Amino acid sequence: MNEKQLVGEKAVEYVKDGMIVGLGTGSTVYYTILKLGKLVQEGLQIKGIPTSVQTAMLAKELNIPLVELKDVEHIDVAIDGADEVDGQAALIKGGGGALLREKIIARASKMFVVVADAKKNVQTLGAFSLPVEVVPFGFEMTARHIAKLGCEPVLRLNPAGEAFISDNGNYILDCPFPEINRPAELERALNMIPGVVENGLFVDMADVVITVDEHQQVKVTTV
Amino acid sequence: MNEKQLVGEKAVEYVKDGMIVGLGTGSTVYYTILKLGKLVQEGLQIKGIPTSVQTAMLAKELNIPLVELKDVEHIDVAIDGADEVDGQAALIKGGGGALLREKIIARASKMFVVVADAKKNVQTLGAFSLPVEVVPFGFEMTARHIAKLGCEPVLRLNPAGEAFISDNGNYILDCPFPEINRPAELERALNMIPGVVENGLFVDMADVVITVDEHQQVKVTTV
Repeated sequence: MNEKQLVGEKAVEYVKDGMIVGLGTGSTVYYTILKLGKLVQEGLQIKGIPTSVQTAMLAKELNIPLVELKDVEHIDVAIDGADEVDGQAALIKGGGGALLREKIIARASKMFVVVADAKKNVQTLGAFSLPVEVVPFGFEMTARHIAKLGCEPVLRLNPAGEAFISDNGNYILDCPFPEINRPAELERALNMIPGVVENGLFVDMADVVITVDEHQQVKVTTV
Repeated sequence: MNEKQLVGEKAVEYVKDGMIVGLGTGSTVYYTILKLGKLVQEGLQIKGIPTSVQTAMLAKELNIPLVELKDVEHIDVAIDGADEVDGQAALIKGGGGALLREKIIARASKMFVVVADAKKNVQTLGAFSLPVEVVPFGFEMTARHIAKLGCEPVLRLNPAGEAFISDNGNYILDCPFPEINRPAELERALNMIPGVVENGLFVDMADVVITVDEHQQVKVTTV
Protein backbone atom coordinates (compact mmCIF):
# COMPACT_ATOMS: atom_id res chain seq x y z
CA MET A 1 0.00 0.00 0.00
CA ASN A 2 1.50 3.35 -0.96
CA GLU A 3 1.93 6.24 1.45
CA LYS A 4 -0.99 8.27 0.12
CA GLN A 5 -3.28 5.27 0.41
CA LEU A 6 -2.15 4.52 3.99
CA VAL A 7 -2.79 8.09 5.05
CA GLY A 8 -5.98 8.57 3.04
CA GLU A 9 -7.63 5.42 4.33
CA LYS A 10 -6.75 6.18 7.94
CA ALA A 11 -8.93 9.28 7.80
CA VAL A 12 -12.17 7.31 7.43
CA GLU A 13 -11.90 6.41 11.12
CA TYR A 14 -13.25 9.88 11.86
CA VAL A 15 -16.40 9.27 9.84
CA LYS A 16 -19.37 7.83 11.73
CA ASP A 17 -22.85 6.81 10.76
CA GLY A 18 -25.20 9.71 10.04
CA MET A 19 -22.46 12.28 9.51
CA ILE A 20 -22.28 15.06 6.94
CA VAL A 21 -18.78 14.82 5.48
CA GLY A 22 -16.79 17.46 3.59
CA LEU A 23 -14.93 15.69 0.78
CA GLY A 24 -11.67 17.33 -0.26
CA THR A 25 -9.80 17.12 -3.53
CA GLY A 26 -6.39 15.65 -4.35
CA SER A 27 -4.29 12.54 -4.70
CA THR A 28 -4.34 11.57 -1.00
CA VAL A 29 -7.96 12.30 -0.11
CA TYR A 30 -8.77 10.32 -3.26
CA TYR A 31 -8.06 7.19 -1.22
CA THR A 32 -10.26 8.44 1.61
CA ILE A 33 -13.14 8.78 -0.80
CA LEU A 34 -12.55 5.35 -2.38
CA LYS A 35 -12.63 3.80 1.10
CA LEU A 36 -15.76 5.75 2.07
CA GLY A 37 -17.38 4.43 -1.11
CA LYS A 38 -16.69 0.87 0.04
CA LEU A 39 -18.07 1.58 3.51
CA VAL A 40 -21.21 3.13 2.03
CA GLN A 41 -21.68 -0.01 -0.05
CA GLU A 42 -21.46 -1.99 3.20
CA GLY A 43 -24.14 0.14 4.82
CA LEU A 44 -22.49 3.32 6.19
CA GLN A 45 -24.98 6.19 6.09
CA ILE A 46 -23.33 9.51 5.28
CA LYS A 47 -23.92 12.56 3.13
CA GLY A 48 -20.99 14.13 1.31
CA ILE A 49 -20.29 17.76 0.40
CA PRO A 50 -17.65 17.88 -2.34
CA THR A 51 -15.09 20.72 -2.63
CA SER A 52 -14.82 20.32 -6.40
CA VAL A 53 -16.55 19.05 -9.51
CA GLN A 54 -13.91 16.34 -9.75
CA THR A 55 -14.68 15.04 -6.26
CA ALA A 56 -18.42 15.28 -6.88
CA MET A 57 -18.02 13.02 -9.92
CA LEU A 58 -15.93 10.48 -8.01
CA ALA A 59 -18.42 10.41 -5.13
CA LYS A 60 -21.33 9.88 -7.53
CA GLU A 61 -19.53 6.97 -9.21
CA LEU A 62 -19.09 5.41 -5.77
CA ASN A 63 -22.75 6.02 -4.82
CA ILE A 64 -21.87 8.32 -1.92
CA PRO A 65 -25.01 10.46 -1.45
CA LEU A 66 -24.27 14.19 -1.84
CA VAL A 67 -25.93 17.21 -0.30
CA GLU A 68 -25.47 20.92 -0.91
CA LEU A 69 -23.79 23.24 1.56
CA LYS A 70 -26.85 25.49 1.61
CA ASP A 71 -29.02 22.63 2.81
CA VAL A 72 -27.03 21.84 5.96
CA GLU A 73 -26.54 23.69 9.23
CA HIS A 74 -22.98 22.45 9.64
CA ILE A 75 -20.57 19.73 8.51
CA ASP A 76 -19.53 17.04 11.01
CA VAL A 77 -16.11 16.32 9.58
CA ALA A 78 -14.19 17.55 6.54
CA ILE A 79 -11.23 15.61 5.15
CA ASP A 80 -8.82 17.29 2.77
CA GLY A 81 -5.21 17.34 1.63
CA ALA A 82 -2.66 20.16 1.81
CA ASP A 83 0.27 21.42 -0.22
CA GLU A 84 2.31 22.02 2.93
CA VAL A 85 1.81 21.37 6.65
CA ASP A 86 4.08 22.99 9.23
CA GLY A 87 4.96 21.91 12.77
CA GLN A 88 1.96 23.84 14.21
CA ALA A 89 -0.50 22.26 11.76
CA ALA A 90 -0.78 25.46 9.73
CA LEU A 91 -1.38 24.64 6.07
CA ILE A 92 -0.84 25.97 2.59
CA LYS A 93 -3.63 24.88 0.26
CA GLY A 94 -4.82 25.97 -3.15
CA GLY A 95 -2.36 24.37 -5.52
CA GLY A 96 -5.42 23.06 -7.35
CA GLY A 97 -7.09 26.47 -7.31
CA ALA A 98 -10.07 25.53 -5.10
CA LEU A 99 -8.83 27.16 -1.89
CA LEU A 100 -11.91 29.29 -1.32
CA ARG A 101 -14.43 26.45 -1.44
CA GLU A 102 -12.08 24.28 0.59
CA LYS A 103 -11.76 26.98 3.23
CA ILE A 104 -15.51 27.60 3.37
CA ILE A 105 -16.09 23.89 3.92
CA ALA A 106 -13.24 23.51 6.43
CA ARG A 107 -14.53 26.51 8.36
CA ALA A 108 -18.08 25.09 8.41
CA SER A 109 -16.85 21.76 9.81
CA LYS A 110 -16.87 20.74 13.46
CA MET A 111 -13.74 18.69 12.79
CA PHE A 112 -11.18 19.22 10.04
CA VAL A 113 -8.92 16.26 9.23
CA VAL A 114 -5.87 16.86 7.03
CA VAL A 115 -4.23 14.02 5.12
CA ALA A 116 -0.69 14.62 3.86
CA ASP A 117 2.09 12.37 2.59
CA ALA A 118 5.61 12.85 4.02
CA LYS A 119 6.72 15.27 1.30
CA LYS A 120 4.12 17.82 2.46
CA ASN A 121 5.57 18.13 5.97
CA VAL A 122 7.82 21.15 6.50
CA GLN A 123 9.36 22.98 9.43
CA THR A 124 8.30 26.37 8.08
CA LEU A 125 5.77 27.07 5.33
CA GLY A 126 6.91 28.80 2.16
CA ALA A 127 8.74 26.42 -0.19
CA PHE A 128 5.35 26.06 -1.89
CA SER A 129 4.12 29.34 -3.42
CA LEU A 130 1.11 30.62 -1.49
CA PRO A 131 -1.99 30.83 -3.70
CA VAL A 132 -4.01 34.02 -3.20
CA GLU A 133 -7.39 34.44 -4.91
CA VAL A 134 -8.00 38.01 -6.12
CA VAL A 135 -10.73 39.80 -8.05
CA PRO A 136 -9.72 40.50 -11.66
CA PHE A 137 -10.51 44.24 -11.34
CA GLY A 138 -7.28 46.04 -10.45
CA PHE A 139 -5.39 42.81 -9.78
CA GLU A 140 -2.09 44.46 -10.77
CA MET A 141 -2.58 46.94 -7.93
CA THR A 142 -3.57 44.14 -5.57
CA ALA A 143 -0.39 42.27 -6.55
CA ARG A 144 1.67 45.34 -5.68
CA HIS A 145 0.12 45.51 -2.21
CA ILE A 146 0.88 41.80 -1.70
CA ALA A 147 4.45 42.32 -2.92
CA LYS A 148 4.99 44.77 -0.05
CA LEU A 149 4.48 41.83 2.33
CA GLY A 150 7.62 40.20 0.92
CA CYS A 151 7.22 38.30 -2.36
CA GLU A 152 6.84 38.69 -6.10
CA PRO A 153 3.32 37.45 -6.97
CA VAL A 154 2.91 35.56 -10.24
CA LEU A 155 -0.44 35.46 -12.05
CA ARG A 156 -1.42 31.80 -12.51
CA LEU A 157 -2.02 30.89 -16.15
CA ASN A 158 -4.02 28.06 -17.68
CA PRO A 159 -2.48 25.66 -20.21
CA ALA A 160 -3.53 28.02 -23.01
CA GLY A 161 -1.41 30.76 -21.46
CA GLU A 162 -4.38 32.87 -20.35
CA ALA A 163 -5.20 33.87 -16.78
CA PHE A 164 -6.47 30.87 -14.80
CA ILE A 165 -10.04 31.53 -13.64
CA SER A 166 -11.20 30.07 -10.30
CA ASP A 167 -14.60 28.46 -9.77
CA ASN A 168 -15.68 31.85 -8.40
CA GLY A 169 -14.58 33.80 -11.47
CA ASN A 170 -11.41 35.19 -9.88
CA TYR A 171 -7.67 35.09 -10.59
CA ILE A 172 -5.01 33.28 -8.56
CA LEU A 173 -1.70 34.95 -7.68
CA ASP A 174 0.98 32.44 -6.69
CA CYS A 175 3.05 34.15 -4.03
CA PRO A 176 6.52 32.77 -3.32
CA PHE A 177 7.15 34.00 0.22
CA PRO A 178 10.61 32.65 1.09
CA GLU A 179 9.64 31.70 4.66
CA ILE A 180 6.30 32.09 6.41
CA ASN A 181 7.26 32.28 10.07
CA ARG A 182 4.04 33.89 11.26
CA PRO A 183 1.25 32.41 9.13
CA ALA A 184 -1.58 33.85 11.26
CA GLU A 185 -0.17 37.35 10.84
CA LEU A 186 0.34 36.96 7.10
CA GLU A 187 -3.17 35.56 6.69
CA ARG A 188 -4.69 38.60 8.39
CA ALA A 189 -2.51 41.03 6.42
CA LEU A 190 -3.51 39.42 3.12
CA ASN A 191 -7.21 39.39 3.99
CA MET A 192 -7.11 43.12 4.77
CA ILE A 193 -5.97 44.02 1.23
CA PRO A 194 -8.96 45.12 -0.86
CA GLY A 195 -9.09 42.86 -3.90
CA VAL A 196 -7.92 39.77 -2.01
CA VAL A 197 -10.82 37.31 -1.88
CA GLU A 198 -9.06 34.58 0.09
CA ASN A 199 -5.62 33.09 0.60
CA GLY A 200 -4.31 29.56 0.89
CA LEU A 201 -3.16 29.80 4.52
CA PHE A 202 -5.24 27.63 6.83
CA VAL A 203 -4.18 28.55 10.36
CA ASP A 204 -5.77 27.10 13.51
CA MET A 205 -8.20 25.14 11.37
CA ALA A 206 -6.82 21.58 11.33
CA ASP A 207 -8.00 19.42 14.24
CA VAL A 208 -6.20 16.26 13.14
CA VAL A 209 -3.21 15.80 10.82
CA ILE A 210 -2.61 12.34 9.38
CA THR A 211 0.75 11.72 7.76
CA VAL A 212 3.57 9.14 7.84
CA ASP A 213 6.75 9.18 9.92
CA GLU A 214 10.27 8.33 8.72
CA HIS A 215 9.54 4.59 9.06
CA GLN A 216 6.53 4.84 6.74
CA GLN A 217 4.23 4.40 9.71
CA VAL A 218 0.97 6.34 9.82
CA LYS A 219 1.24 9.18 12.32
CA VAL A 220 -1.85 10.91 13.71
CA THR A 221 -1.47 14.30 15.39
CA THR A 222 -4.42 15.79 17.23
CA VAL A 223 -4.13 19.56 17.48
CA MET B 1 -26.35 76.13 -3.90
CA ASN B 2 -27.52 72.97 -2.19
CA GLU B 3 -25.56 71.14 0.48
CA LYS B 4 -24.34 68.34 -1.77
CA GLN B 5 -23.10 70.86 -4.31
CA LEU B 6 -21.29 72.95 -1.66
CA VAL B 7 -19.52 69.88 -0.33
CA GLY B 8 -18.86 68.26 -3.68
CA GLU B 9 -17.33 71.35 -5.24
CA LYS B 10 -15.11 72.01 -2.24
CA ALA B 11 -13.30 68.72 -2.90
CA VAL B 12 -11.79 69.91 -6.18
CA GLU B 13 -9.36 72.03 -4.16
CA TYR B 14 -7.38 68.84 -3.56
CA VAL B 15 -6.94 68.22 -7.28
CA LYS B 16 -3.82 69.71 -8.88
CA ASP B 17 -2.44 69.78 -12.40
CA GLY B 18 -0.98 66.45 -13.55
CA MET B 19 -2.79 64.33 -10.96
CA ILE B 20 -4.36 60.93 -11.37
CA VAL B 21 -7.76 61.21 -9.69
CA GLY B 22 -10.04 58.46 -8.40
CA LEU B 23 -13.61 59.44 -9.22
CA GLY B 24 -16.25 58.08 -6.87
CA THR B 25 -19.93 57.49 -7.43
CA GLY B 26 -22.98 59.12 -5.86
CA SER B 27 -25.09 62.23 -5.57
CA THR B 28 -22.47 64.38 -3.79
CA VAL B 29 -19.34 63.42 -5.71
CA TYR B 30 -21.47 64.08 -8.81
CA TYR B 31 -20.91 67.79 -8.16
CA THR B 32 -17.18 67.22 -7.73
CA ILE B 33 -17.04 65.61 -11.15
CA LEU B 34 -19.14 68.38 -12.77
CA LYS B 35 -16.75 70.97 -11.37
CA LEU B 36 -13.70 68.98 -12.47
CA GLY B 37 -15.21 68.89 -15.95
CA LYS B 38 -15.37 72.68 -15.96
CA LEU B 39 -11.77 72.98 -14.77
CA VAL B 40 -10.60 70.53 -17.43
CA GLN B 41 -12.34 72.66 -20.02
CA GLU B 42 -10.37 75.61 -18.66
CA GLY B 43 -7.08 73.74 -19.01
CA LEU B 44 -6.64 71.53 -15.92
CA GLN B 45 -4.66 68.43 -16.88
CA ILE B 46 -5.80 65.33 -14.98
CA LYS B 47 -6.55 61.69 -15.62
CA GLY B 48 -9.54 60.09 -13.96
CA ILE B 49 -10.09 56.54 -12.74
CA PRO B 50 -13.83 55.93 -12.31
CA THR B 51 -15.26 53.61 -9.62
CA SER B 52 -18.31 52.76 -11.74
CA VAL B 53 -19.69 52.62 -15.24
CA GLN B 54 -22.02 55.49 -14.33
CA THR B 55 -19.12 57.74 -13.33
CA ALA B 56 -17.13 56.71 -16.40
CA MET B 57 -20.02 57.86 -18.60
CA LEU B 58 -20.35 61.18 -16.80
CA ALA B 59 -16.58 61.81 -17.04
CA LYS B 60 -16.58 61.03 -20.76
CA GLU B 61 -19.46 63.46 -21.36
CA LEU B 62 -17.41 66.13 -19.58
CA ASN B 63 -14.24 65.29 -21.55
CA ILE B 64 -12.29 64.28 -18.44
CA PRO B 65 -9.58 61.91 -19.78
CA LEU B 66 -9.77 58.46 -18.21
CA VAL B 67 -7.06 55.91 -17.52
CA GLU B 68 -7.23 52.33 -16.27
CA LEU B 69 -6.10 51.29 -12.83
CA LYS B 70 -3.73 48.71 -14.30
CA ASP B 71 -1.88 51.45 -16.20
CA VAL B 72 -0.96 53.55 -13.17
CA GLU B 73 1.47 53.02 -10.29
CA HIS B 74 -0.73 54.89 -7.83
CA ILE B 75 -3.56 57.40 -7.59
CA ASP B 76 -2.82 60.89 -6.28
CA VAL B 77 -6.22 61.65 -4.81
CA ALA B 78 -9.53 59.78 -4.73
CA ILE B 79 -12.78 61.57 -3.98
CA ASP B 80 -15.85 59.61 -3.00
CA GLY B 81 -19.02 59.77 -0.96
CA ALA B 82 -20.11 57.62 1.98
CA ASP B 83 -23.33 56.21 3.40
CA GLU B 84 -22.23 57.05 6.95
CA VAL B 85 -19.25 58.84 8.51
CA ASP B 86 -18.54 58.56 12.24
CA GLY B 87 -16.64 60.88 14.58
CA GLN B 88 -13.32 59.13 13.82
CA ALA B 89 -13.80 59.35 10.04
CA ALA B 90 -14.62 55.67 9.75
CA LEU B 91 -17.08 55.09 6.93
CA ILE B 92 -19.81 52.77 5.77
CA LYS B 93 -19.89 52.54 1.99
CA GLY B 94 -21.49 50.20 -0.49
CA GLY B 95 -25.12 51.27 -0.60
CA GLY B 96 -24.68 51.38 -4.37
CA GLY B 97 -23.04 47.95 -4.43
CA ALA B 98 -19.59 49.09 -5.68
CA LEU B 99 -17.77 48.87 -2.36
CA LEU B 100 -14.99 46.60 -3.60
CA ARG B 101 -13.90 48.80 -6.51
CA GLU B 102 -14.26 51.87 -4.32
CA LYS B 103 -12.08 50.29 -1.64
CA ILE B 104 -9.43 49.17 -4.14
CA ILE B 105 -9.24 52.70 -5.50
CA ALA B 106 -9.28 54.37 -2.08
CA ARG B 107 -6.53 52.04 -0.89
CA ALA B 108 -4.41 52.79 -3.97
CA SER B 109 -4.69 56.56 -3.38
CA LYS B 110 -2.14 58.72 -1.63
CA MET B 111 -4.99 60.89 -0.39
CA PHE B 112 -8.63 59.90 0.10
CA VAL B 113 -11.15 62.73 0.31
CA VAL B 114 -14.68 61.92 1.51
CA VAL B 115 -17.61 64.16 0.67
CA ALA B 116 -20.75 63.76 2.77
CA ASP B 117 -23.84 65.86 3.33
CA ALA B 118 -25.00 66.46 6.91
CA LYS B 119 -27.36 63.47 6.99
CA LYS B 120 -24.41 61.08 6.60
CA ASN B 121 -22.71 62.19 9.80
CA VAL B 122 -23.29 59.96 12.81
CA GLN B 123 -21.83 59.50 16.25
CA THR B 124 -21.60 55.73 15.85
CA LEU B 125 -21.90 53.73 12.62
CA GLY B 126 -24.71 51.25 12.23
CA ALA B 127 -28.01 52.95 11.43
CA PHE B 128 -27.14 52.17 7.80
CA SER B 129 -26.97 48.42 7.14
CA LEU B 130 -23.37 47.40 6.44
CA PRO B 131 -22.97 45.95 2.93
CA VAL B 132 -20.78 42.84 2.80
CA GLU B 133 -19.79 41.34 -0.56
CA VAL B 134 -19.71 37.52 -0.49
CA VAL B 135 -19.09 34.76 -3.03
CA PRO B 136 -22.32 33.05 -4.12
CA PHE B 137 -20.95 29.57 -3.26
CA GLY B 138 -22.10 28.72 0.26
CA PHE B 139 -23.35 32.23 0.97
CA GLU B 140 -25.98 30.90 3.40
CA MET B 141 -23.14 29.47 5.52
CA THR B 142 -21.19 32.73 5.20
CA ALA B 143 -24.30 34.62 6.35
CA ARG B 144 -24.49 32.39 9.43
CA HIS B 145 -20.88 33.18 10.34
CA ILE B 146 -21.60 36.91 9.95
CA ALA B 147 -24.75 36.58 12.07
CA LYS B 148 -22.57 35.38 14.96
CA LEU B 149 -20.94 38.83 14.95
CA GLY B 150 -24.28 40.38 15.91
CA CYS B 151 -26.74 40.96 13.08
CA GLU B 152 -29.23 39.27 10.78
CA PRO B 153 -27.79 39.56 7.25
CA VAL B 154 -30.25 40.13 4.41
CA LEU B 155 -29.45 39.08 0.84
CA ARG B 156 -29.71 42.16 -1.39
CA LEU B 157 -32.18 41.69 -4.24
CA ASN B 158 -32.46 43.46 -7.58
CA PRO B 159 -35.75 45.08 -8.71
CA ALA B 160 -36.77 41.75 -10.31
CA GLY B 161 -36.53 40.10 -6.90
CA GLU B 162 -33.46 38.03 -7.74
CA ALA B 163 -30.10 38.19 -5.96
CA PHE B 164 -28.29 41.43 -6.78
CA ILE B 165 -25.00 40.65 -8.55
CA SER B 166 -22.01 42.95 -7.97
CA ASP B 167 -19.64 44.06 -10.75
CA ASN B 168 -17.40 41.22 -9.60
CA GLY B 169 -20.10 38.55 -9.88
CA ASN B 170 -20.75 38.31 -6.15
CA TYR B 171 -23.72 38.75 -3.81
CA ILE B 172 -24.23 41.54 -1.27
CA LEU B 173 -25.45 40.82 2.25
CA ASP B 174 -26.87 43.92 3.97
CA CYS B 175 -25.95 43.57 7.63
CA PRO B 176 -27.92 45.65 10.14
CA PHE B 177 -25.49 45.80 13.07
CA PRO B 178 -27.31 47.90 15.67
CA GLU B 179 -24.17 49.83 16.70
CA ILE B 180 -20.64 49.53 15.35
CA ASN B 181 -18.50 50.76 18.23
CA ARG B 182 -15.25 49.16 17.06
CA PRO B 183 -15.28 49.37 13.27
CA ALA B 184 -11.61 48.28 12.88
CA GLU B 185 -12.29 45.12 14.87
CA LEU B 186 -15.47 44.30 12.97
CA GLU B 187 -13.71 44.90 9.64
CA ARG B 188 -10.98 42.40 10.54
CA ALA B 189 -13.47 39.83 11.85
CA LEU B 190 -15.53 40.05 8.65
CA ASN B 191 -12.48 39.78 6.39
CA MET B 192 -11.37 36.61 8.19
CA ILE B 193 -14.61 34.76 7.30
CA PRO B 194 -14.03 32.56 4.24
CA GLY B 195 -16.58 33.59 1.62
CA VAL B 196 -16.43 37.28 2.54
CA VAL B 197 -14.86 39.15 -0.38
CA GLU B 198 -14.97 42.62 1.13
CA ASN B 199 -17.05 44.73 3.48
CA GLY B 200 -18.25 48.31 3.41
CA LEU B 201 -16.27 49.50 6.45
CA PHE B 202 -13.53 51.98 5.50
CA VAL B 203 -11.44 52.48 8.64
CA ASP B 204 -8.30 54.63 8.79
CA MET B 205 -8.64 55.35 5.08
CA ALA B 206 -10.12 58.85 4.88
CA ASP B 207 -7.53 61.64 4.97
CA VAL B 208 -10.01 64.48 4.59
CA VAL B 209 -13.75 64.60 5.31
CA ILE B 210 -15.75 67.43 3.76
CA THR B 211 -19.24 68.00 5.11
CA VAL B 212 -21.42 70.87 6.37
CA ASP B 213 -21.95 72.06 9.93
CA GLU B 214 -25.26 73.00 11.56
CA HIS B 215 -25.13 76.46 9.94
CA GLN B 216 -24.84 74.99 6.45
CA GLN B 217 -21.19 76.01 6.32
CA VAL B 218 -18.70 73.71 4.64
CA LYS B 219 -16.57 71.95 7.24
CA VAL B 220 -13.26 70.33 6.34
CA THR B 221 -11.73 67.80 8.75
CA THR B 222 -8.21 66.58 8.12
CA VAL B 223 -7.62 63.22 9.76
